[in-house]
Amino acid sequence: MDWAQVFASRQSRMKASEIRELLKLLDQPDIISFAGGIPDPALFPTDAFSEAFADIFSTAEGQQALQYSVSEGYKPLREWLAQQMGEIGIPCDLDNILITSGSQQALDYLGKLFLSPNDTALVTWPTYMGALGAFNAYEPHYDRLDPASNRTADDYRATAEAKGGAVKFAYASVDFANPTGMTMDRRERQGLLDLSEALDIPFIEDAAYQSLRYDGEPQPSVLAMEIEKRGTIEDCRTIYCGSFSKTLAPGLRVGWVVAAKEVIQRLVLIKQASDLHSASLNQIAINRVARATFGKQVDLIRKTYSARRDHMLAALEREMPDNVSWTRPEGGMFIWVTLPQDIDGADLLAESLKTEKVAFVPGRAFYADSANGNGIRLSFSCALPDKIDEGIGRLGRVIRQTSAQT
Amino acid sequence: MDWAQVFASRQSRMKASEIRELLKLLDQPDIISFAGGIPDPALFPTDAFSEAFADIFSTAEGQQALQYSVSEGYKPLREWLAQQMGEIGIPCDLDNILITSGSQQALDYLGKLFLSPNDTALVTWPTYMGALGAFNAYEPHYDRLDPASNRTADDYRATAEAKGGAVKFAYASVDFANPTGMTMDRRERQGLLDLSEALDIPFIEDAAYQSLRYDGEPQPSVLAMEIEKRGTIEDCRTIYCGSFSKTLAPGLRVGWVVAAKEVIQRLVLIKQASDLHSASLNQIAINRVARATFGKQVDLIRKTYSARRDHMLAALEREMPDNVSWTRPEGGMFIWVTLPQDIDGADLLAESLKTEKVAFVPGRAFYADSANGNGIRLSFSCALPDKIDEGIGRLGRVIRQTSAQT
Repeated sequence: MDWAQVFASRQSRMKASEIRELLKLLDQPDIISFAGGIPDPALFPTDAFSEAFADIFSTAEGQQALQYSVSEGYKPLREWLAQQMGEIGIPCDLDNILITSGSQQALDYLGKLFLSPNDTALVTWPTYMGALGAFNAYEPHYDRLDPASNRTADDYRATAEAKGGAVKFAYASVDFANPTGMTMDRRERQGLLDLSEALDIPFIEDAAYQSLRYDGEPQPSVLAMEIEKRGTIEDCRTIYCGSFSKTLAPGLRVGWVVAAKEVIQRLVLIKQASDLHSASLNQIAINRVARATFGKQVDLIRKTYSARRDHMLAALEREMPDNVSWTRPEGGMFIWVTLPQDIDGADLLAESLKTEKVAFVPGRAFYADSANGNGIRLSFSCALPDKIDEGIGRLGRVIRQTSAQT
Repeated sequence: MDWAQVFASRQSRMKASEIRELLKLLDQPDIISFAGGIPDPALFPTDAFSEAFADIFSTAEGQQALQYSVSEGYKPLREWLAQQMGEIGIPCDLDNILITSGSQQALDYLGKLFLSPNDTALVTWPTYMGALGAFNAYEPHYDRLDPASNRTADDYRATAEAKGGAVKFAYASVDFANPTGMTMDRRERQGLLDLSEALDIPFIEDAAYQSLRYDGEPQPSVLAMEIEKRGTIEDCRTIYCGSFSKTLAPGLRVGWVVAAKEVIQRLVLIKQASDLHSASLNQIAINRVARATFGKQVDLIRKTYSARRDHMLAALEREMPDNVSWTRPEGGMFIWVTLPQDIDGADLLAESLKTEKVAFVPGRAFYADSANGNGIRLSFSCALPDKIDEGIGRLGRVIRQTSAQT
């Protein structure tokens, strides 16, 4: 049968990524990869999980863990999260929290909640590629979220109306963002809130990397800043998306959303209709492991990743030609490298895989308008020192060669 | 902030169910409930899961189980499923299978794949309430799937066009369906295929209960019938949705879709954008437990549930007034009771919870047009014999009282 004729119109927005195809080559053992945006599995609290599962199945909790459960999420886990949120300036209660299958699912649900076709979502240039993927299913347009640009709310509104819809939300990762590694300071965060308020839209705070600060001045969560101003989360427009994927384990798919109850109630209905609930067992296990090891686990990751970041920054300093610059992140997993204007990251990757066997993610896919091609993302989370030295050396060589040819 | 002004138009279709509110009363310990559509947790292969988790964490597989994995799903599990599918007349390979977080998620993804606003989905009257919930997010209209009605393909097409879209798929559960318990015979299944072919649309076969046959003549899967005719799954329009929720454990959220590769490739992109992948650990555990115990487990469930079905049918025979009829399912978890025309199931539930403390699900929510109110769904999967006798006795009383008043 001719499937194309029955596909929904949104399918034209959901394409396979060329980069993913390129990156399938990474299975070759001789490639040094800084491409994957994944945590180092050697740091997972595997023993704590092993113990948690054994404990769960040693009692009647085992049966409960295998049964259906409520869409909102496992209550003791939401209790622990409410307490954690309180500690970072976000006082809230259980009904302000929904458990999701990773924060990726939260982004899908928020697209479903807010976006009708031709509405506009404001995102940074560049932004998390997976957020664009999630939102694309709801056929929005994108406009550049840039409070420093002095564009007025009316200008944003007029641009969205000209495209047949309205501005529905602003989305950003403000801590050690994927892909740039950059963090917004308090003034920039206030700018996001002010613009969202002027547009009367929600602000989606992607906090996936928030716990992974290695140095620099701690910044308040955007939601915490808004609660500080308004007194209660119920009056806040910020929707906070958290994840255990970068701290405990991504493979269990557990994240959470914190927002005003009116938003959470809507998201619960969306969850019910889309997958009933996140796996009961995974929530019960995460609750146990978080309570037992979260702080210790975050300390271990910070110590390990910050050393890798330092090592990679030193290697970049040593190996990169003068016409290349890069970010110096205070946390997270990524460094963003800006190539000379005339080098496209995707071309460089193709060349690099062929001649130098070093991999990274070309930056174009992180731009909603696909306009900027000369950035690349390097991940240091899984990179051991000798691989960093060797890999960044190779990267320097391939950039020099490509520069010489253009 | 005024949230309603930023919600997507689809939000008007995603409402909290009044029934769910009513059913929250079920926590009262003195209520006898035939409402929940859940499996009996006492039958879960809890020991097998306990062993599987212990084994996984005793090797390097533990780390792998906590890491990100591919959107398609865990390869050994897809291999086992391909073999199982082959045994029921569905020869296929790995690339024809996507692992989903329960078959509920498959329904959400299929709505996302096919439905643009104002398109039409064909569903049976009544149908699985959760399918309507999943599809509603994509703002379709519904038309009645009834191959026996002699409506022509042109008539279905014209009806859909008048509503501003096209017929995009037909959906049905053909084995011991939720809520009726009814099974379609080979001729009826052929009717579904013929109509789908005449309309040139996919047919979605919801096989959630397919393994749970207790007696009667075995029927081929609709996809198996189509493969028999066309020779290869690649030429088939049927999309098969399976689930481990009724056989192994719902709390792990593992289901699967089997279809032509072109469909699976699209669904993989949808999965990537919506939650990256189903939990790695859960797929690894299900693979182990399925290989070790699936057949034995299905035998145990069949034996237990069929005795409960028999017990409930006998009680209905004994306790129901003459103006009430009910289905006699050959499998699954449900019996559908048809009340006198003038009794509404929701009214009966309200009365029943007040005076007799017996619960069930009123039938209106299973109808896409909400027109039929005099059906109710009884579940026997978790009902022990003495509770069945007592509960059906109470139900008979409240129906008699309500009949007398109307």
